[in-house]
Amino acid sequence: MIKKLLIANRGEIAVRIIRACKELGIETVAVYSEGDKDALHVQLADEAYCIGPVASKDSYLNKTNLITIAKLTNTDAIHPGYGFLAENADFAELCRDSNVIWVGPSPEAIQAMGTKDVARETMRQAGVPVVPGSTGIVETIEEAKKVVEEVIGGYPVIIKATAGGGGKGIRVAYNEEELIKGINVTQKEAAAAFGNPGIYLEKYIEDFRHVEIQVLADNYGNVIHLGERDCTVQRRMQKLLEETPSPAIDEKLRAEMGEAAVKAAKAVNYSGAGTIEFIYDYRNKKFYFMEMNTRIQVEHPVTEMVTGVDLIKWMIRIANGEKLTIKQEDVKFEGWAIECRINAENPDKNFMPSPGEVKMYLPPGGFGVRVDSAVYPGYKIPPYYDSMVAKLIVHGSTREEAIARMKRALSEFVIEGIDTTIPFHLRLLNHEKFVEADFNTKFLEKYDLTKK
Amino acid sequence: MIKKLLIANRGEIAVRIIRACKELGIETVAVYSEGDKDALHVQLADEAYCIGPVASKDSYLNKTNLITIAKLTNTDAIHPGYGFLAENADFAELCRDSNVIWVGPSPEAIQAMGTKDVARETMRQAGVPVVPGSTGIVETIEEAKKVVEEVIGGYPVIIKATAGGGGKGIRVAYNEEELIKGINVTQKEAAAAFGNPGIYLEKYIEDFRHVEIQVLADNYGNVIHLGERDCTVQRRMQKLLEETPSPAIDEKLRAEMGEAAVKAAKAVNYSGAGTIEFIYDYRNKKFYFMEMNTRIQVEHPVTEMVTGVDLIKWMIRIANGEKLTIKQEDVKFEGWAIECRINAENPDKNFMPSPGEVKMYLPPGGFGVRVDSAVYPGYKIPPYYDSMVAKLIVHGSTREEAIARMKRALSEFVIEGIDTTIPFHLRLLNHEKFVEADFNTKFLEKYDLTKK
Repeated sequence: MIKKLLIANRGEIAVRIIRACKELGIETVAVYSEGDKDALHVQLADEAYCIGPVASKDSYLNKTNLITIAKLTNTDAIHPGYGFLAENADFAELCRDSNVIWVGPSPEAIQAMGTKDVARETMRQAGVPVVPGSTGIVETIEEAKKVVEEVIGGYPVIIKATAGGGGKGIRVAYNEEELIKGINVTQKEAAAAFGNPGIYLEKYIEDFRHVEIQVLADNYGNVIHLGERDCTVQRRMQKLLEETPSPAIDEKLRAEMGEAAVKAAKAVNYSGAGTIEFIYDYRNKKFYFMEMNTRIQVEHPVTEMVTGVDLIKWMIRIANGEKLTIKQEDVKFEGWAIECRINAENPDKNFMPSPGEVKMYLPPGGFGVRVDSAVYPGYKIPPYYDSMVAKLIVHGSTREEAIARMKRALSEFVIEGIDTTIPFHLRLLNHEKFVEADFNTKFLEKYDLTKK
Repeated sequence: MIKKLLIANRGEIAVRIIRACKELGIETVAVYSEGDKDALHVQLADEAYCIGPVASKDSYLNKTNLITIAKLTNTDAIHPGYGFLAENADFAELCRDSNVIWVGPSPEAIQAMGTKDVARETMRQAGVPVVPGSTGIVETIEEAKKVVEEVIGGYPVIIKATAGGGGKGIRVAYNEEELIKGINVTQKEAAAAFGNPGIYLEKYIEDFRHVEIQVLADNYGNVIHLGERDCTVQRRMQKLLEETPSPAIDEKLRAEMGEAAVKAAKAVNYSGAGTIEFIYDYRNKKFYFMEMNTRIQVEHPVTEMVTGVDLIKWMIRIANGEKLTIKQEDVKFEGWAIECRINAENPDKNFMPSPGEVKMYLPPGGFGVRVDSAVYPGYKIPPYYDSMVAKLIVHGSTREEAIARMKRALSEFVIEGIDTTIPFHLRLLNHEKFVEADFNTKFLEKYDLTKK
């Protein structure tokens, strides 16, 4: 039985997890770096311990310190949040070896999805659609050319480092010359950045939407999906706004994607909350496995808003050995939810980070508005970590109402003293193409929404 | 078509209405007294005008000033909120005569429900259960004695001023002596306070729960109900906490009460949002019409949280001549919602008002939490108006989860510089009898939750 839980994270996700624990009657242990002693998660937790200097590698990524604090405080479980150690199989294993419950999937499941070419092959064998491409690592230029010709059927192709992620270790080739150069450069980069030069090839789908499926699985083989999230609005592969349902897919496709996602999770004996990201080739109405995120995601609240299912609570319950009591047919989708990531950045200065003191802070309220944040009036946003300071999530009965509500909520959100992406989001929500849902992942390359 | 709307109110309900208008694309006109120039509703509205000194009678109750501003600003409609002029038939008529749309029922419907003995008789004739009692006004002591004996069947009885309300002009008599004295005193008081000495008699149901039904009616005869709200937790007839569903009634009773409420609304050709309050005699599983509030109520958000129906938007749409598109069978109730009224009062000093500067303010957030408030950091709560400063509303899948969530949200709500009822609400939510839902309207008389 989990009676005490350590949150190996900071910011809004640490606050989110503390809130769930409080509602479940579980005591909380916060950890913080020297740069985070005034952070909200430190104030809200029952106990809080400094785990090291500001540099993440010495604090939030310091496995030994985390386990030491967990053991000293008689903590039963560790929730890693997202980022930091959330998808670190070694840390999950260290928890297991230290008799601390890891709130997440097994180290084996993390591992299976963490190596891209292995995950791709596992998915292919499980019957989950994958983008046409190489089977495993491509070693030589000759082999690559053969794959392009015989499997992919021509250019453009995408060269991916198997150990890459988050937009790193990826290159596109439109012809043989670019292929040869791309392979050489990507291998060298990947060896330096990830310690693994392995690359593989895939057909490059130029115009697609990013649609992902939330799954929830227990330790007894029960797996359900909770519908999709459309995360097509991205800037340099970073999501800025997410919504559910996706305005680009229909009931039939949702069911197909959902089934594929459940298959994917079952193929790796997944347990907990996870997300299968798909490339949705909307011109051909086909979807392909992109990757699985073996953790809770930033954008999980939109799913909570339309399904009523508390994902963080379920992660904890599942880690606690409880059975999933929600059946697939129980999952109902009500209305429309949108999330805007409010970052401490100046959208008109190339999204330059804008840390500093929040002099005035008043989040929006009212019907259908949810704010997940770790900011308070007078809080000094440290420059050391990621720049997301709040997630603003709205729910409405239709997409139109959700958009109107989001604009209303953004317009009354007061964050003074720093620059934020609020003005950018307002421009985005007013953009004709956004309103019409007529865009793909290149939206922000095609339409410049920044002010010069 | 309503393009511009004036809000004849202040505080959180003015903010609530402005938010709905913004989402509907309607321009807003705020009005404020000299004591409210820094109020949030003034800042959020598109236009704002001072309508008079701090005294309500000279500002928020000043019908002429309100109509003048409406006409000068080319306002199409007036929303009165609750309190002030919300149930003032004369003002509704003045709006009609001035060609300004009144967002509410007709003056005739307000009138019909505003005179208590008339409303009671109308309800009785419409087949809505009323508490056994006199038919109309009781003029003499002899007549009163006869009603007690022949209609009510004995003591205790309740003496009510027909023009009373909000706990005023009410007296209980346990015997003939108290009856005689009570009638004399109540008549005199009512003549002085309401300009109408008329009183009537009802059987006094000592132990009951306050359960009310929300209705929504359009101008074309369509009336639906949106379930009940249980407002049994009261202090001196003032509601402190409301929840839906009621833990005291079942599906069958809900349907019966709902039908009775629809009948009640139809009997007075009601249009807009209204509430039929019932006395629920839980020992005998019987319910009786108490009164109808011909306006939006403070506690409307709990209904919005379980039904997803935006009541303020529907009031405006209906006033705009739109048809109700929600049918009774479309109304679904999901989960459990609770509202706590956060007042600027010291619960341990007899709920003494505590106006003043809010030095620090941080409302709670996260999943299932809604805050309706007009407070911001540095706001000076004026001493002239009612002391409610925020409504904290939570939604959970069960009553247990909603209670846990409310406790979590209350515990993280930061309002510094003034006293609030937050500690009182935490004690209430932790009280065994509240948790068991085993209480009636005398809960707070029976159990003292204040600290001495």
